[in-house]
Amino acid sequence: MFPDPQSLARALLAGERRALARAITLIESTRPDHRLAAEALLHEVLPHAGRSIRVGITGVPGAGKSTFIEAFGLNVVERGHRLAVLAVDPSSPRSGGSILGDKTRMEELSRDQRAFIRPSPSGCTLGGVARRTREAMLVCEAAGFDVILVETVGVGQSETAVADMVDLFLLLLVPGGGDELQGIKKGIVELADAIIVNKADGDLEAAAGRAARDYRNALHLLTPANAAWMVPVLTCSALARSGIDQVWETVETFGQTMKDSGRFEERRAEQAHAWMWSEIAETLLQTLKDDPSVARQLPDLEAGVTRGFLAPGAAARQLVEAFRSRAPSSE
Amino acid sequence: MFPDPQSLARALLAGERRALARAITLIESTRPDHRLAAEALLHEVLPHAGRSIRVGITGVPGAGKSTFIEAFGLNVVERGHRLAVLAVDPSSPRSGGSILGDKTRMEELSRDQRAFIRPSPSGCTLGGVARRTREAMLVCEAAGFDVILVETVGVGQSETAVADMVDLFLLLLVPGGGDELQGIKKGIVELADAIIVNKADGDLEAAAGRAARDYRNALHLLTPANAAWMVPVLTCSALARSGIDQVWETVETFGQTMKDSGRFEERRAEQAHAWMWSEIAETLLQTLKDDPSVARQLPDLEAGVTRGFLAPGAAARQLVEAFRSRAPSSE
Repeated sequence: MFPDPQSLARALLAGERRALARAITLIESTRPDHRLAAEALLHEVLPHAGRSIRVGITGVPGAGKSTFIEAFGLNVVERGHRLAVLAVDPSSPRSGGSILGDKTRMEELSRDQRAFIRPSPSGCTLGGVARRTREAMLVCEAAGFDVILVETVGVGQSETAVADMVDLFLLLLVPGGGDELQGIKKGIVELADAIIVNKADGDLEAAAGRAARDYRNALHLLTPANAAWMVPVLTCSALARSGIDQVWETVETFGQTMKDSGRFEERRAEQAHAWMWSEIAETLLQTLKDDPSVARQLPDLEAGVTRGFLAPGAAARQLVEAFRSRAPSSE
Repeated sequence: MFPDPQSLARALLAGERRALARAITLIESTRPDHRLAAEALLHEVLPHAGRSIRVGITGVPGAGKSTFIEAFGLNVVERGHRLAVLAVDPSSPRSGGSILGDKTRMEELSRDQRAFIRPSPSGCTLGGVARRTREAMLVCEAAGFDVILVETVGVGQSETAVADMVDLFLLLLVPGGGDELQGIKKGIVELADAIIVNKADGDLEAAAGRAARDYRNALHLLTPANAAWMVPVLTCSALARSGIDQVWETVETFGQTMKDSGRFEERRAEQAHAWMWSEIAETLLQTLKDDPSVARQLPDLEAGVTRGFLAPGAAARQLVEAFRSRAPSSE
């Protein structure tokens, strides 16, 4: 089904669109032989990856995220960039498809050859989705995409996962008094490197300006100063395509500021290191869960712990010992 | 050095203060035989643990946390409660002792027989400190302490670790315009179930009231509504011992509200479950790091990942395979 990793890598580096789609499908596969091929592919393309700015984006429900991504994306490709849009939506197997599954929401952008839109891999935990998305970023970069936009629908801990894999994180809000913010989960505002109040058009234009001012004041009170960056609050209208230039300029300024201070590369190295350790932890835990003797003991131990008659530490030790006393892997 | 776990448990349940101190020392020991004895002890006392309210507290530098804990603690014991104060300070091996190491800062409380103050265990990672502190909470509860105060000095991720082990989390601030908040790390405000502006006395009394009002407005903008609880912002003076009654009443009201909604027990069960899995993950990772073949390969792989010429996923797989191909544990 897949060409060998070296051929796929060559086609990818030559900018063949079909090779990119296949490479990501390979990366998303959970079949052990595909995992090994994906690893070989990543090894080939890694020297050509990394030359991009990685932008994360989340928004409250109703903030018009798809419309914003369409407007922002078209603006970015018009400037001569190539844009890849990836999604992190661990809920997609249940909700029946990620927000990006329905490409009609970004009709113009999805037809543009300078853009590449890929829905969230399905059937995965957040850890699985995050892992695949990190790897998909690398192959997109190798294929010549220099702006990577990673969107999250904000399920579970997905914003944190996305913020940890990108260079900067955008939060899309809508105008209004503050009651609209009920939809923002705890801690999300604190992850944002820039806040964008969308729908600053028509009747809502004045309200958007007031909302931006309120957020600016609130940020001043609640967010610690980052010596290198003051979180800006912008307004835009994705529908009217106004204010989008300023969003892109903010992304560029942020990237330049971080590069000038050396923080950009430093942060990427930290992310790669943390990514390695989270892969190790996830692989180890999965191996433990898959172990038959662990699986036999787990239900009783979990019940004992949640009902409060078994100490969590004792249950943990029993499970790890059951795991370690099995025969070594023959893989 | 230690009595057998059963005798120690009996003495602990009989309320012998010396037994409590020894039990916590046993829990803090990393010697494998001590770990097993600690586990046996926890097994004995677990049916008698849990009947407390667990309160976490953090504060900006200069917020007067020790003075506050002294005033709050004395207020609580005067009401007929028994109070245990524990600390989570993973930095203590480096900084040369936790904030509680210097008991003179809580002179009156530390001499009170109704209170028990224990500094942070030293020489541990945050994970290690958190594990020991969770277990120390259980033995304090078994010894009849019905209010557990866990303080953190706010190093690394320690606030999150503390918030995850307590029933409610207090954030102590000082009056002022907002610039004083530079010391609060991202996301901490969002963890708070109640915010307390200390030093509402003398010249600062009016400023404290203004700060409380500002925080209330900011919370309204930034924090999502919790159907069962609206985060209150209180003022107090730990020095003048005013406003402390209201802090305790807030703690009681919070506990009652959560119990009425069933959320209290539900959250404790979730915490115990998460604790078990974090112990499993930590134990597995430590076992991997201790593995000689992993240790041999790790430096090169880490360097390759952070310098960007080795994919994190490939490095992770190599390390996990090196770990799994070793002989099974003979423990």
